Amino acid sequence: MTQPIRLVINGASGRMGRALLALIREDGRFDLVSALVSKSSVHNGAPVFPELPSLLRYSHEWDAITADVVIDFSGLDGLAAALGFCAAHDAALVTGTTGIDATLQAKLDEASQRIPLLHATNFSLGVAVLKRLLREAAAALPDWDLEIIEAHHNRKEDAPSGTALTLGHAAADARGTTLAKDAVYAREGRPGARRSGSIGFAVVRGGDVVGEHTALLLGQGERVELSHRATDRSIFARGALEAAAWLTGRKPGSYDIDDMLKARVSG
Amino acid sequence: MTQPIRLVINGASGRMGRALLALIREDGRFDLVSALVSKSSVHNGAPVFPELPSLLRYSHEWDAITADVVIDFSGLDGLAAALGFCAAHDAALVTGTTGIDATLQAKLDEASQRIPLLHATNFSLGVAVLKRLLREAAAALPDWDLEIIEAHHNRKEDAPSGTALTLGHAAADARGTTLAKDAVYAREGRPGARRSGSIGFAVVRGGDVVGEHTALLLGQGERVELSHRATDRSIFARGALEAAAWLTGRKPGSYDIDDMLKARVSG
Amino acid sequence: MTQPIRLVINGASGRMGRALLALIREDGRFDLVSALVSKSSVHNGAPVFPELPSLLRYSHEWDAITADVVIDFSGLDGLAAALGFCAAHDAALVTGTTGIDATLQAKLDEASQRIPLLHATNFSLGVAVLKRLLREAAAALPDWDLEIIEAHHNRKEDAPSGTALTLGHAAADARGTTLAKDAVYAREGRPGARRSGSIGFAVVRGGDVVGEHTALLLGQGERVELSHRATDRSIFARGALEAAAWLTGRKPGSYDIDDMLKARVSG
Amino acid sequence: MTQPIRLVINGASGRMGRALLALIREDGRFDLVSALVSKSSVHNGAPVFPELPSLLRYSHEWDAITADVVIDFSGLDGLAAALGFCAAHDAALVTGTTGIDATLQAKLDEASQRIPLLHATNFSLGVAVLKRLLREAAAALPDWDLEIIEAHHNRKEDAPSGTALTLGHAAADARGTTLAKDAVYAREGRPGARRSGSIGFAVVRGGDVVGEHTALLLGQGERVELSHRATDRSIFARGALEAAAWLTGRKPGSYDIDDMLKARVSG
Repeated sequence: MTQPIRLVINGASGRMGRALLALIREDGRFDLVSALVSKSSVHNGAPVFPELPSLLRYSHEWDAITADVVIDFSGLDGLAAALGFCAAHDAALVTGTTGIDATLQAKLDEASQRIPLLHATNFSLGVAVLKRLLREAAAALPDWDLEIIEAHHNRKEDAPSGTALTLGHAAADARGTTLAKDAVYAREGRPGARRSGSIGFAVVRGGDVVGEHTALLLGQGERVELSHRATDRSIFARGALEAAAWLTGRKPGSYDIDDMLKARVSG
Repeated sequence: MTQPIRLVINGASGRMGRALLALIREDGRFDLVSALVSKSSVHNGAPVFPELPSLLRYSHEWDAITADVVIDFSGLDGLAAALGFCAAHDAALVTGTTGIDATLQAKLDEASQRIPLLHATNFSLGVAVLKRLLREAAAALPDWDLEIIEAHHNRKEDAPSGTALTLGHAAADARGTTLAKDAVYAREGRPGARRSGSIGFAVVRGGDVVGEHTALLLGQGERVELSHRATDRSIFARGALEAAAWLTGRKPGSYDIDDMLKARVSG
Repeated sequence: MTQPIRLVINGASGRMGRALLALIREDGRFDLVSALVSKSSVHNGAPVFPELPSLLRYSHEWDAITADVVIDFSGLDGLAAALGFCAAHDAALVTGTTGIDATLQAKLDEASQRIPLLHATNFSLGVAVLKRLLREAAAALPDWDLEIIEAHHNRKEDAPSGTALTLGHAAADARGTTLAKDAVYAREGRPGARRSGSIGFAVVRGGDVVGEHTALLLGQGERVELSHRATDRSIFARGALEAAAWLTGRKPGSYDIDDMLKARVSG
Repeated sequence: MTQPIRLVINGASGRMGRALLALIREDGRFDLVSALVSKSSVHNGAPVFPELPSLLRYSHEWDAITADVVIDFSGLDGLAAALGFCAAHDAALVTGTTGIDATLQAKLDEASQRIPLLHATNFSLGVAVLKRLLREAAAALPDWDLEIIEAHHNRKEDAPSGTALTLGHAAADARGTTLAKDAVYAREGRPGARRSGSIGFAVVRGGDVVGEHTALLLGQGERVELSHRATDRSIFARGALEAAAWLTGRKPGSYDIDDMLKARVSG
């Protein structure tokens, strides 16, 4: 019925790019217009996508493209180029590129006056829902002790996970405080009684766990536990596609996953 | 600083009444004015509260009482008497009496034009929060499969629990359907593939589990789990006291636990 | 150092066969001698394994093969052929073929006098461990209420899962009873208080859950929970390879996964 | 039918002593002969057990007592006195007194040649079962990553809990290593990839959680989770009574809870 959305994937040879390509084949909402890779990523190996030769382009070949939305997981240079394209062609832009500096951020802000732009560091819908729920529970049960447990595979090098910290920030914010003030990242030996109002983190590492986060709100005689479990990395690509479908045709502005959920909840 | 709230407990010899009396001793917010019991409950045993002789009254002795709020867990007759008292003295009324018929309901509705009145069947704050969160998650993730697991002690005779059904109704409502239409209460033998949009219940019985409820929202590659665990029956009395403190002095109307939470969340 | 084990995969074009081939590439313990497929499975599609042409054989081409162990997921006919080969060449045999009839079983029993033979319906090491632990806990806590919860994806058609029933049989056996006598498969409406000694099952269906099983032992004021979670179907192939490595060179006999674990535990 | 076991509770005014007295009233297996308290504990408050005046004795009044078994939660001096009594009267001794020094330990060892003696620091049957199962799982799955999570109320001052450490020691032992060598007690910032073979601990504090311990064994694509949840402190008194009933009449020796479980399992 409706026209499929003309989609470009920018950064198609990375982990997210490949996951997007795998999903896009079975997703009737989109018409994949082009998949862009940097020259360096191609040089690193022989033909990246033998099955997509006609769609594959180098990252400087934006001129030949027409699209409704770009999903970008490319890096700072790639994002800058995608931004230029989208602003010039009124295309929507979904990006998960991290490490954005002040200059690029200013460009993103400026572009969001002309195009719909969604930036996120975690595209899992479930995590976004968890964050919303945690914020609400932290406010509704202000006196209950709040703890966050996360588990990831044994190769993860940082702790707690970025998502655990994001959840912690959201909960702290809902209670009118900050992690800088109230987080407790480790308990070992004789830390003494729990300080009221603190937010504790606990970290589990092992196996090939994709990512699990649980927020505990512990009261007297009862508790609430809110968990997200990821069992497949494809959820991030899946969420990016959801975001692209939702963002296309929306009015200009700066959006995040939470805006998409809000729109769903309020119907 | 502030004056303690003058509180009456109606139905003081029942399980909830006793739990309230146990908590009230350590709760500086309240001044226990009187604890009422029915004559029959006193006749059933010798002096009910040797430690509270001066506060104990029979259920027809309302005339001698002055109070800001009444907490009622007495039964239909007791509730009717409490209602009369509250309406006459502009006192707030918190009641957990069940089995209210149409006549009494009409009286409650009428009284709520003059006094603040809060009725609930489950006073756990945690369960009330879980219900709110589940409603929101069910709406935000409309395509994810929804299941509810509950566990209770081995003496419980009905299944699923009333609270599990309440959660199920809330979730169904948030998705624009009903349990009558979409609930699946048992799976045994060869029920076939899960029907999309259905809401499944699973029941565990054993030990002295006070009550646990988990709502699962299961997507592709990820899931959200929302749980409430009660470990002590005192939580219901605790919630009733929270409700009494919150309701006192509020403007007339009919409230439930969710209104109290909403007020907290919106700050 | 040690010679790699010469391995044959029988039934290489099925789901398990393909999973085994994917794992074998990175497993230094084995030298894949041959992968056999039935003629019919090849006819169903063009060249099955373009990357393995030299190793692929039809299921009647056993004569050309020399091997230390065969892993079989082929079907009744394929298993019979593999059995003949192993008995003739003193090779070990690991099989997950189901639906074995009395005649074939007799052949298996006879062959196990000459070769080591391991048959299993679930090759997950974690499930095998869970079964052992559950048996022990059920015996050590004979008065505690026992319940089994399982969760699987929304396409599963039977309930409870075969693995849940296997766990239930093990627990019942450890308590000197049977599921036929003491299982409770559904609770709905007003089933009444839990019958002491019964074993309850609870079933969850949703999303793409690979398979989760939890055994609960519920006492007064405490409980023990034993869970297995599978997040990737490759675990079954992984377990079959473990079994093959363990079985090779063992003395003749009929083994199961539990024997392998027992050997590990007793050191 | 059988004669009730003549029981003495030594240290009856402490938390465990009081819990034992509460349970003993409803336990037909025992005849409470006497409940001993130290003079100092009585001086600290008015009449300790108005309901048990005839059974209450001071801790130096052993001479007047005849008993089959003593349960001791008194302290070092009290334990020494109880030991003297038991050795002289061939009574069994169950003790949970902590901080036993070398001299007293030598006396205990010597007495265990004459009487059955059971010492434990945690009398929960569930925890003892968990320890057995963890030992077995750690040995059966030697390559899986092992992590221990524990949760306790917000007043607990040490971390991880003594029970978590006991579980960790058992697991380390089953793998031929020690916590001194392989434990990781905190992860914060950038600890790097998980070291293979390490045993990680994660700590949760909040609410009035009595005590929960989970051991995770994390493999590739699957995991095993073993949990114990305590919801009521009475479980420790309950376990001590189980131990007393089991120990009475047994042949001399030094026992622990595990011996009691082993006897059950092997049946």
